[in-house]
Amino acid sequence: MRARVRIIGTGLIGTSLGIALTGAGYDVALDDPSPTARWLARDLRAGRIEVDETPEVVVVAAPPDVCGEVIVAALRRWPEAVVTDVASVKEIILREVLAAGVDVTRYVGSHPMAGRERPGTAAARGDLFDGRAWVIVPHDATDPRAVEAVRAMATAVGAAVRVMPATEHDAAVATVSHLPQLAASLVAGCLRELPEHAVGLAGQGLRDVTRIAASDPRLWTQILYGNAPAVLQVLHEVQDRVTEVIDALEGIVAGRSEGALGTISRVLEAGNLGHARIPGKHGAAPAAYEIVSVVVPDEPGSLGRLFADVGDAGVNLEDLQLEHGIGQAVGIAYLSVVPASLEPLLEALERQGWRVHQ
Amino acid sequence: MRARVRIIGTGLIGTSLGIALTGAGYDVALDDPSPTARWLARDLRAGRIEVDETPEVVVVAAPPDVCGEVIVAALRRWPEAVVTDVASVKEIILREVLAAGVDVTRYVGSHPMAGRERPGTAAARGDLFDGRAWVIVPHDATDPRAVEAVRAMATAVGAAVRVMPATEHDAAVATVSHLPQLAASLVAGCLRELPEHAVGLAGQGLRDVTRIAASDPRLWTQILYGNAPAVLQVLHEVQDRVTEVIDALEGIVAGRSEGALGTISRVLEAGNLGHARIPGKHGAAPAAYEIVSVVVPDEPGSLGRLFADVGDAGVNLEDLQLEHGIGQAVGIAYLSVVPASLEPLLEALERQGWRVHQ
Repeated sequence: MRARVRIIGTGLIGTSLGIALTGAGYDVALDDPSPTARWLARDLRAGRIEVDETPEVVVVAAPPDVCGEVIVAALRRWPEAVVTDVASVKEIILREVLAAGVDVTRYVGSHPMAGRERPGTAAARGDLFDGRAWVIVPHDATDPRAVEAVRAMATAVGAAVRVMPATEHDAAVATVSHLPQLAASLVAGCLRELPEHAVGLAGQGLRDVTRIAASDPRLWTQILYGNAPAVLQVLHEVQDRVTEVIDALEGIVAGRSEGALGTISRVLEAGNLGHARIPGKHGAAPAAYEIVSVVVPDEPGSLGRLFADVGDAGVNLEDLQLEHGIGQAVGIAYLSVVPASLEPLLEALERQGWRVHQ
Repeated sequence: MRARVRIIGTGLIGTSLGIALTGAGYDVALDDPSPTARWLARDLRAGRIEVDETPEVVVVAAPPDVCGEVIVAALRRWPEAVVTDVASVKEIILREVLAAGVDVTRYVGSHPMAGRERPGTAAARGDLFDGRAWVIVPHDATDPRAVEAVRAMATAVGAAVRVMPATEHDAAVATVSHLPQLAASLVAGCLRELPEHAVGLAGQGLRDVTRIAASDPRLWTQILYGNAPAVLQVLHEVQDRVTEVIDALEGIVAGRSEGALGTISRVLEAGNLGHARIPGKHGAAPAAYEIVSVVVPDEPGSLGRLFADVGDAGVNLEDLQLEHGIGQAVGIAYLSVVPASLEPLLEALERQGWRVHQ
């Protein structure tokens, strides 16, 4: 017997989930106020759309600003179903649901840590949750069976489940997700009116820092609105540090550099320490990988030859970055490998004639 | 006859330049207050160290805080030589040189836009400047022959030369290089005391935004010190935006959300617009590439097979990103290609059995 899931909201997350759950053997019903979005989701094999059957699990994948009311309506309409949602903020939605006077034991919030810079149904893909964290956010009255139903679903689409309360979740994403988004947008915003010759000096550092500045402003406005208290807290912290740096730089400009270098250095050192805490691949502790850089001609097949040679050496890449130069037809591939693989890799690549640097 | 270059300071940049120039047929003499650094640079084939000959060009690759005095000493010691430097800030050094009462017509500042997160002689590589921008910064009294000597050298090591005044250079790097460094360090700094469960939710966005937070604090303190006025200007701009966002979020928390969403949305939209101005690969205008995502099993040879298949399809990758999931043995490779290559690539990869999403 296939579990019956109803997905309300067939945008990027809802449709991706439908595709993944259908692939995992779930019976998925799709619902969305937009007929176009519904039909497109169905055509992408995310599920069926003409259904009146009672769902066992309802997943609300609506925009954050209407999420609460859609959850409440679902709890009322299907008095036996477990209801969850996938919004990026949890406390504000939980409060709305708790205040509605419905049977909240069947509600458990959740947040798959997955997304893309491109929003919308058409951007959906069934592997969106493959290997991603999926946070389940029970409240005091949540029935453990509701948690288990969501856990089963998250696991079925390949996600790694974490369980934590709403306040903890919101504080965590304020720092690891919402602050980086704001930082990227603020840095990128400074490029808007920069002279052409200045933008032309952009390097890989700027590209990395601002990549997510391309994200959907409408969605992110709702997310920041929904997590205002937690974002405020971390933003005040950043504001204080920025003020310290500004004071230090003003001291330097005014010739009073005493203490100023120490302030700036401390901010940079704190960055070193914080960066070192970010988990490595697969959620493992950050590993000390060796990095090998290889010069790659910019022509069809050259990356193919490189990775074929890496494969032939029996070496597994832990990470990979490709860097392009300006105005020249070569790139550099940075291959990260565990220390034990370093020598075999260097030897194999040099034997094949690659320009390699360690 | 081989041009004679003397490099003073055999750290990452100096040694890399020595290797590259030696490879390009220059006769390179190396100098550094540290004998270990000198010897290591020589062993890396960056040049010779026992030399008394008069150089035609002197490259000062000393740390920013001593750069000015080393340039002045070089101008005095070799009254015929062109002297340049490679520091990341130019105005502060230029002032020091102009104030020293030496023959400044032979001095021209420069800044190769190249570096690595790892500092030091041992991290040097001859291809460091391959395809990178190299900014030449003449002043009013610079002899055009000095500019040409540096241009020849930069071109010989594969860099793309840009010429601009010191103030323009410093303002440009304040925004495209120094601000992103500070932003990355500030965001990463917030992770330092974050609970373990929160750091565990880190995703690719955070990783990208904070990658350069791993940079050398000592070097970056000097850079920010040296470019204090220009960094101050852009930092004040950011501080104003942060204050606006904080005010908006405080309004939301206090139930006065009028105008608040507009403020937040404008910051995010400005980020969209600024991000769109960043030049694409090879300094070209940002191109609208198509992105194909491919699920890659985490085992030796799988990337090799993928890129061999891409090569066999006759498709050239414009960009490449590898993303890892948490707790699962698959990754996703994002392949960027020109629109015309999209269909052939999808077809070829699907024929070879890859799980492909567009």
